[in-house]
Amino acid sequence: MPELRRDPVTGRWVIIATGRAQRPQDFIREPVRLKGGLCPFCPGNEAKTPPEILAYRPNGAGGKDGAGWTVRVVPNKFPALEIQGELDRQAEGIFDRMNGMGAHEVIIETPEHELTLATMPAKRVEDVLYAFRDRMADLRNDARLKYALIFKNHGEAAGASLEHTHSQLIALPILPRQVVEELKGARAYFDVKERCIFCDIAQQESKSQTRMVAENADFIVITPYAPRFPFETWILPRKHDSAYDASPAVRFGNLALALKTVAAKMDRVLDHPSYSMVLHSAPLHDPPTEHYHWHMEISPILTKVAGFEWGSGFYINPMPPEEAAKFLREAKVSV
Amino acid sequence: MPELRRDPVTGRWVIIATGRAQRPQDFIREPVRLKGGLCPFCPGNEAKTPPEILAYRPNGAGGKDGAGWTVRVVPNKFPALEIQGELDRQAEGIFDRMNGMGAHEVIIETPEHELTLATMPAKRVEDVLYAFRDRMADLRNDARLKYALIFKNHGEAAGASLEHTHSQLIALPILPRQVVEELKGARAYFDVKERCIFCDIAQQESKSQTRMVAENADFIVITPYAPRFPFETWILPRKHDSAYDASPAVRFGNLALALKTVAAKMDRVLDHPSYSMVLHSAPLHDPPTEHYHWHMEISPILTKVAGFEWGSGFYINPMPPEEAAKFLREAKVSV
Repeated sequence: MPELRRDPVTGRWVIIATGRAQRPQDFIREPVRLKGGLCPFCPGNEAKTPPEILAYRPNGAGGKDGAGWTVRVVPNKFPALEIQGELDRQAEGIFDRMNGMGAHEVIIETPEHELTLATMPAKRVEDVLYAFRDRMADLRNDARLKYALIFKNHGEAAGASLEHTHSQLIALPILPRQVVEELKGARAYFDVKERCIFCDIAQQESKSQTRMVAENADFIVITPYAPRFPFETWILPRKHDSAYDASPAVRFGNLALALKTVAAKMDRVLDHPSYSMVLHSAPLHDPPTEHYHWHMEISPILTKVAGFEWGSGFYINPMPPEEAAKFLREAKVSV
Repeated sequence: MPELRRDPVTGRWVIIATGRAQRPQDFIREPVRLKGGLCPFCPGNEAKTPPEILAYRPNGAGGKDGAGWTVRVVPNKFPALEIQGELDRQAEGIFDRMNGMGAHEVIIETPEHELTLATMPAKRVEDVLYAFRDRMADLRNDARLKYALIFKNHGEAAGASLEHTHSQLIALPILPRQVVEELKGARAYFDVKERCIFCDIAQQESKSQTRMVAENADFIVITPYAPRFPFETWILPRKHDSAYDASPAVRFGNLALALKTVAAKMDRVLDHPSYSMVLHSAPLHDPPTEHYHWHMEISPILTKVAGFEWGSGFYINPMPPEEAAKFLREAKVSV
């Protein structure tokens, strides 16, 4: 019989179909294959992007917008938001709007066009994670911005328009809805239990191992109890921190390993799927809190959009997370 | 400059890109074309579906599961939920689950394989709307069920697995998240204003005409102020009713005209797009309320899923609803 499961943080119910056994092959779509060609993110084409905001040049070679970088952050050439201007909140009858003020940046994760998070050296993935941290910390200085949403669309099916591996950052004068729901749910749990719900999840999952995909001293990689999508995966810090950029630098090595492991295992089990990654961290101007706990959510794009899910907020997931975790856990990868 | 707009009911903010003018052609994808062939929903194949729950046979001809029907409702052959059994709520450590109890039905909208909501006679669309009402009213008798979610996935890109035009009904022991948010938002508005927010929207939109697509004596068809998707469209009753199946039968003729008009206009402007329709009505066991107001939401499936929208609840819509409404309004269709 199918099961209804409740996401412990947001309270969202999903249907988990538990009927016939599903195999990863049943979900495989067009694999992501790099085609190469002219690319504005490749070294030598630095002039094809807006001037860089941040770059790491470990050997010190090359000046701003020059060569020698390992990670490079530039403004999005076609930004969804514009950084100039005030918020200018206005009414339009009963409706509310404000200027589309905010930042929209691109994190170019490596100079090498043919690499991905799964195939980059772990040290290079670590640099990407430092870039996320440094940009988030910098945007914290802008009082107009409430949230820095870091995400990655990998592959065409996930909406990536350029194949050279990159992430994006959208800094917003509002809180994204999903984060608001998590904050509320985590707060309500804390009010009852005086414990962080994410810490409780990390403990229960570490103990039961049922949905464990991979783990190291600082992070666990799990399929969540009530996932919306087949093979949805979370990276959860074992130690509590509400803001991503407040994590001690000593943990970034293990975070890089965890992220690279998820990407490599998905490539292996699902034949190089498109996927999306979202980094959920506390709002920019919140002080450190005991109830919220940053984490990453990674979902391969495998199923057709059943449009009613947009209109109802109600999800049917044909893949029990315990089975998804088993396939991912057993996939051998070298990281 | 782009705009941030707030959905007045749920409070969700979306970015509306207002940069370069968009044309409908920019969004057109694979048109939905019927291929025909063996179809379990066609007359003569009644034995290929589970036994019918409801059917209209206006000429009285044909018995149960026989010929002569105009609309036929059957259980889904591959149901996401099962109607037998009790809820059986259980804990699994800190997690919560229950049996996947519920109903999953298919409303076969016409015996004619080659017709759609856009091309069916308005009287036949009206029959479909009566079938929605009759099934909803019947399921109200089951105390275990809290919500009847009626929706339609038209075309492969919307997730339809059979092309013969049909809707679906999923009856749930829980409330879908999107409905919970609407109920909360509508309640909060009512607490402040002592007016229904949907009634206020209907009045403002009727007056301004900026986002009006079509209207008749009982319904307005608008693009909402803060839509998540290009060409997202709502059908809103002018008169207040919280539950769909409590609407007076005298209005169903005009509702059929409104629905057929939207479908035909989308076909015309967007070249037969895949689309999803969701009917939002009050929970099954709520008494009539002053603050909630049933409506239909229709979204063509035009843009690639940018996966981060799933993970953030944050939407970027490249098509201002005022422009979408203009294209739809000016499209000539005969209904």
